[in-house]
Amino acid sequence: MTVKIGLIGCGGMGRAHIDRIVNELSGAEIVAAADVNLEAAQAVADSVGGDAKAYGTGAELIADPNVDAVLIATFGSVHTPDVIGAIEAGKYVLVEKPLATTAEDCQAIMEAEVRGGKKLVTVGFMRRFDKAYNEIKALVDGGEYGPVLMVHNRHRNPSVPESYTSRMLIDDTAIHEIDTMRWMTGEEIVKVRTDSVRKSTRAHAKLEEPIVLVFYTESGIRIDDEVNVNLEYGYSIECEVVMENAAARLGDQEGIYVRDVHGDRNRMCQDHNDRFHGAFNAEVQSWINAVAEDTHTGSSSWDGYAATAVVDAALASQEQGGTEVEVELIEKPDFYA
Amino acid sequence: MTVKIGLIGCGGMGRAHIDRIVNELSGAEIVAAADVNLEAAQAVADSVGGDAKAYGTGAELIADPNVDAVLIATFGSVHTPDVIGAIEAGKYVLVEKPLATTAEDCQAIMEAEVRGGKKLVTVGFMRRFDKAYNEIKALVDGGEYGPVLMVHNRHRNPSVPESYTSRMLIDDTAIHEIDTMRWMTGEEIVKVRTDSVRKSTRAHAKLEEPIVLVFYTESGIRIDDEVNVNLEYGYSIECEVVMENAAARLGDQEGIYVRDVHGDRNRMCQDHNDRFHGAFNAEVQSWINAVAEDTHTGSSSWDGYAATAVVDAALASQEQGGTEVEVELIEKPDFYA
Amino acid sequence: MTVKIGLIGCGGMGRAHIDRIVNELSGAEIVAAADVNLEAAQAVADSVGGDAKAYGTGAELIADPNVDAVLIATFGSVHTPDVIGAIEAGKYVLVEKPLATTAEDCQAIMEAEVRGGKKLVTVGFMRRFDKAYNEIKALVDGGEYGPVLMVHNRHRNPSVPESYTSRMLIDDTAIHEIDTMRWMTGEEIVKVRTDSVRKSTRAHAKLEEPIVLVFYTESGIRIDDEVNVNLEYGYSIECEVVMENAAARLGDQEGIYVRDVHGDRNRMCQDHNDRFHGAFNAEVQSWINAVAEDTHTGSSSWDGYAATAVVDAALASQEQGGTEVEVELIEKPDFYA
Amino acid sequence: MTVKIGLIGCGGMGRAHIDRIVNELSGAEIVAAADVNLEAAQAVADSVGGDAKAYGTGAELIADPNVDAVLIATFGSVHTPDVIGAIEAGKYVLVEKPLATTAEDCQAIMEAEVRGGKKLVTVGFMRRFDKAYNEIKALVDGGEYGPVLMVHNRHRNPSVPESYTSRMLIDDTAIHEIDTMRWMTGEEIVKVRTDSVRKSTRAHAKLEEPIVLVFYTESGIRIDDEVNVNLEYGYSIECEVVMENAAARLGDQEGIYVRDVHGDRNRMCQDHNDRFHGAFNAEVQSWINAVAEDTHTGSSSWDGYAATAVVDAALASQEQGGTEVEVELIEKPDFYA
Repeated sequence: MTVKIGLIGCGGMGRAHIDRIVNELSGAEIVAAADVNLEAAQAVADSVGGDAKAYGTGAELIADPNVDAVLIATFGSVHTPDVIGAIEAGKYVLVEKPLATTAEDCQAIMEAEVRGGKKLVTVGFMRRFDKAYNEIKALVDGGEYGPVLMVHNRHRNPSVPESYTSRMLIDDTAIHEIDTMRWMTGEEIVKVRTDSVRKSTRAHAKLEEPIVLVFYTESGIRIDDEVNVNLEYGYSIECEVVMENAAARLGDQEGIYVRDVHGDRNRMCQDHNDRFHGAFNAEVQSWINAVAEDTHTGSSSWDGYAATAVVDAALASQEQGGTEVEVELIEKPDFYA
Repeated sequence: MTVKIGLIGCGGMGRAHIDRIVNELSGAEIVAAADVNLEAAQAVADSVGGDAKAYGTGAELIADPNVDAVLIATFGSVHTPDVIGAIEAGKYVLVEKPLATTAEDCQAIMEAEVRGGKKLVTVGFMRRFDKAYNEIKALVDGGEYGPVLMVHNRHRNPSVPESYTSRMLIDDTAIHEIDTMRWMTGEEIVKVRTDSVRKSTRAHAKLEEPIVLVFYTESGIRIDDEVNVNLEYGYSIECEVVMENAAARLGDQEGIYVRDVHGDRNRMCQDHNDRFHGAFNAEVQSWINAVAEDTHTGSSSWDGYAATAVVDAALASQEQGGTEVEVELIEKPDFYA
Repeated sequence: MTVKIGLIGCGGMGRAHIDRIVNELSGAEIVAAADVNLEAAQAVADSVGGDAKAYGTGAELIADPNVDAVLIATFGSVHTPDVIGAIEAGKYVLVEKPLATTAEDCQAIMEAEVRGGKKLVTVGFMRRFDKAYNEIKALVDGGEYGPVLMVHNRHRNPSVPESYTSRMLIDDTAIHEIDTMRWMTGEEIVKVRTDSVRKSTRAHAKLEEPIVLVFYTESGIRIDDEVNVNLEYGYSIECEVVMENAAARLGDQEGIYVRDVHGDRNRMCQDHNDRFHGAFNAEVQSWINAVAEDTHTGSSSWDGYAATAVVDAALASQEQGGTEVEVELIEKPDFYA
Repeated sequence: MTVKIGLIGCGGMGRAHIDRIVNELSGAEIVAAADVNLEAAQAVADSVGGDAKAYGTGAELIADPNVDAVLIATFGSVHTPDVIGAIEAGKYVLVEKPLATTAEDCQAIMEAEVRGGKKLVTVGFMRRFDKAYNEIKALVDGGEYGPVLMVHNRHRNPSVPESYTSRMLIDDTAIHEIDTMRWMTGEEIVKVRTDSVRKSTRAHAKLEEPIVLVFYTESGIRIDDEVNVNLEYGYSIECEVVMENAAARLGDQEGIYVRDVHGDRNRMCQDHNDRFHGAFNAEVQSWINAVAEDTHTGSSSWDGYAATAVVDAALASQEQGGTEVEVELIEKPDFYA
C-alpha cells in the first residue's frame, strides 16, 4: 500500500521532506500541500506531479479524504490546532519539533490523543534515527560497561542569523539534546541549570552565548550541553557518554582524511542536513512504513511534552541568572507507558 | 513512472537488491524473478506481493513485455547470454560485476550494444557510488593538490571459505580496486605485476595469500593493492591517493569511538554490506532514476571489458610467478567515448 | 657548574627525582638525602655513590654547606618548615605540589620569601612543562583563534586505593587542573562549584565520585573538570580549550595505532609517570639550569598559594553540597608581579 | 665516571650532538673537537667551556689521551680512516650513518674491529631508539599477532634542495628504513627492486622522484618504502607492519588536535629533529651509559655493512631501470653473532 501524505507548511523543511519522499524513499506519495501562502502550496503540489491538491489551511488538507497521513512542518507556535485536527480526523501525523511551544498546548494534544484512544502523533526528533547515536545507545542498553554516570554534549554551529535570540539557544537548539538524552538514558530529566560563559564577540549584541546547560536525570546522571552557535568551524554535534567502565562518543562522520599543509585532518559537517541526512531519511521512512502497517513509531506526544517541560525549566533558569530549576511534569498517562 | 524490474538470479545478492528496491528505494517495483531453480524464483516473486511472475530462465523473463529493465545477479560466468538478450530486447540491464569472465565475452556484449546503437548496460561496480570514494575523487578532479602520483589500496577481509582460490584474489576481489582506480584516475591501466608475500598461516593450504598487485596507468601513476583476505580484524577497504601536494585516504566510516581497556578505538566494518550498504542503495537508485529518464548511468560495458582485460593480465602475471604483463585492450569504440 | 642537590623525603616520588637527575638529566648531582626514616635516607645516599650524606631531618640537610639547592618530596602537610628553612638559608627549593595544605601556611612561606627579597621557591606543577599543554597554550597566547571562552578538563584514573578520600578528589587530583588552568588562561579563578554525579559502583563505600568541578576566571571563562578516578581504561588527562574560532585538545600521546579484532585503536597511558615522564624531566632540568644561573623558574609561591586557595573554596563547596563559593585571595604582592 | 667525548665533524649534526650532550644528557662532557676547518673546531671547543681542545684532523683528536670516546659526524665518504683510527686506538666510536659509502670500506672497518677483538663501533641509526618504533617491535617480538607478512613504509619530506640527487633517495634517505626493517624483522634483506612512479613536478629537473623500493627478507616478508621528498605537508615517517592477525602503524606523535575551519586536525612534524629529537637523545644517552660501563650498544659495524650492501643493490636496480637485484653479503663473522 502506498501512503498518501499531505504536507502542511511548505517552507524549506517541508520541501526537504517532500524531496526525500519523492526521490529517495519507498512507499509514499504526496497528494496534497497546504500553506498560508497558497501559491507556495500550489508550487509544491505542481512539483510532485500527478493531481496533488493545494490548500490555504491545514484544516482543509486534513479534511481531504484522499490524505492518509499528515506531515506538519510549520512553525512550532502554530502546530497545535493542526496536530489536534489530524488526531480528531484519525490520521497519523509527523510533526516537526517542537510538538508545541508550551506545556499546556502539549497537554491539550495528549488529551485529544488519549480521547481518540490511538497513538497517532510522532514528533520529528530525527537524532533517534541517527546511526551513530544508535550505536552508542546499543552500548548503553547492552550494559557491558555498567550504568551511565555522565554525558557531555556539544552543539556547535558555525554561525546564526541576527534573528536568532538567546531563548532559541534552549527551545530551538538544546531541545535536540534534551530529547536525545531522555531517549538514550531512558530517564526523565528532573532538574536543570544554565551556566553563563564568557560571551563570544562573534555573537551579535543581544545574543548571550555560548551557554552550558546542566541537566540531572531521575537516577542522578549528570548531563551537560555546550550550546555554542558561532564556532566558525562547522556544525559539530558531539556527545560523550561516560559509563562506569568506558566512555563512548560520536565521531565526525569521517568519510575521508586529508594530509596537507594544514595537518592530518577530516572535514567537519557544515549544517544539519549535511550531518543528519541519513537520520532524516530513516525517520521519515520508518514513519511511512509504520503508517502503512497502522502502527506508531518514533517520539510520542509524551516525548514532545516532556522536552517542552524541560525547555520551560531551562528558560526559567536562564531568566533567573542560572539558578537550578526543578522540571514540573504531570503524571505520565498509562496511555504512553 | 514506476520502473518495472525483473531479477535474474535469486541468490543472496539478488535478494539483497530486491530488499532495497522494495523497502528502501523510490520509483521501482519488482514484476518478475528468474532462476534456474524455479522454486527460488517463485519464492522471490511471492515475497514482493502483487502478481510478480516467476521464470526458470532469463530469456523468458527478458521476453516478458511487463519487464522494463533487467537486474542480473547470477554467477559472472553465465552473464553473457542474458546481458546480450536484454540488449537485443532493448531493455536496460544492471549486471553484477564482473560483466563477463573473459575479454571475448565482454567484446561480444559491446558488439551487441553498439549494434543496437544504445547504451543499455550498467555494470555493478558499486564503489563508484560510495560517498567517501567520491569525496577523494572530487579532490583529485579539483586539481587543487596537483596530479595523482601513486595510490595505495588495501583490500582486507577477516576470512574466506575453503572454496576461495588464489585466482579469486584477482578476479573476484582485486577487480573492485581495478575498476575504482580506472574511475578515480580517469586512465586505463597499461601494465600489471603480482608480488608474492610471505604466506599467511591463516590461509588454507591451496591459497597463496596475501598478495600485492602493482598497476601502472597511461601517465605512469603507480597503484598498489594489498589483497589480504584472512586478516581477522574485519572488512577493511583502505585507499590512500598520493597527489603532488597532499595525500587523501578513506576513513573507517567511524560512527563512534569507544574508550575502554582496549584503548581509544573505532569499530571495523565486518563485510561488504556493512561497509557499502549506502553505495549499493545509491547505485541502484541512480540506475532506477536513469532508466525512468531513459538514460544510461554508472559503469559501461567498456568499463566491464577493461576491468576484465586487466584481470587477465594480472592472472597471467600470477601464473608466471610475478613477471610484469602488458594489458591488451582493443581500441575504444567511439560509442563509449 | 654542577648543581649540588639535597633531597628531603625519600619515598617513591623522591627516588623518581633522584633517578632522573642521576641517569637522565644534565648538570646536577645528589650530595645529600634526608628522611624521618634515616635508613631510607642512607639507602638513597649510598645509591648515588660518591660521598653523599644522609640526614634524619630536613633542617640538617638544609644546613649542610655542600647543598646548593633543595628538592622537597615529603607529604604536603609537612612542607612548610623545610620550605621556610631553605628560604632562610638562601637556597633554591623545588617543592612537590601542594606548596602547603593551608592558605595560611602558603602565606607564611610567601612572607619569608618576600622578607628574604629573592624568589627561591618553585612548586612542582609539572604539567606546565608538558609539550602538549604548551602547544595549546601557544595557540591561546598567539590569539589567532580569539580569546578562550571555556575549557573542558577530564582527569581520569583506572582506579584508586581504599585510602583515597572524597577530599583528595580536589586537593590531590583536581589541584593539577587548577594550576594548569591558571597558567594557561593567565587569570585567577574567582569562584568554584562542585557538581555531584551519579556515583560509580566501582568507587569504595566512602568515596563520592566521580564529581565535576566548575570554575570561573576573572574574565568569565567557564572551566569544568571531570574528576573520575575509577574509569578502568587508564590514566587519561583530557583538556579541550574552546576559543572563539576553534577548539584545541590534548591527544593521547598516540605513539602507535593497532588495528585488530578490537578495532583501530591507540593505547591509553596507565599512570602519571607514563603520561608525564617528559614533563617531569623538563621541569627538573629547567630548575637545575635556572639554579645554575641563579634565577627562578616554574610555579612561584604565589601560584602555590592561589591553587591552595581555590582548593579551599572547592572543598567548602563540596561540604556545602555544591553551592557556588567565592575564592578568597589576598592582594598579590608586587614581589610576585 | 664522566665520559670524555671528542667530536670529529663540527657541522650542523655535530653541533646538535654537542648541544644535547651539554644541555640535556647525563654523564658526559666534550673535551675535544676536530674539523678540517680548524676555526669551526675551535668555536665548538670554546662553546663548551672548560679547556676543550681543537684539532684540524680526526687523527690528532683520536690520539689525544684525554679523549675516552669519539663521536664522528663528518660526511659518510670520509668516515673510514677515523673509524679505523678509533678502533686501533681502542676507543668507542659513535659514527653517524652511513658507516661508510662502500661495502668494501665497511668490510675494512669490520676487519679492524675483529682484529682488535672488541666491539667498539656504534652506527647512528637513531630510529632504533624511537619510542613508537620500539612499541611496534615489542608487538612483533611478542608474537601475539603472528609473524610479520608485510611492512609498508613512507618516507615523506616537505622538500629537498637542488643538491639532492636521485641517488640520495636511496643512500641518504631510504637507508633509514633499510636499517629499521632489518632491526624490526630480525632478518637480512635478500633482494630489492626499485619501482618508478609518475614524477612529481615539485622535484627539480634531474631528480627522478618519488620512487618506491620493494625489499624481500630471508623468510619472504615483503617490505615497501615510498620515498617521496617533495610532499609539501611535512616530514612524515609512516610505517605499517602487517602481521597475520593485526596491523600496527606509527602515529604522527599527535600532541594535540585543533578543530578549526580546516577540520579536525593534528600537526605534522616538519623535520627529523622535530620527529626524532627523543630518539637522538635516547641513542646518545645509551651510548654514553654503555661506554661508561665499557660495553657496546646500538647498531654494530655489521649493521652498517649490511645496510650499505642493500643500498648498493638498490642503486644497481635503479641504474638498471627497476630490475630485481640480489643483495650480496659476506658470511657474517661469529664476532657479530
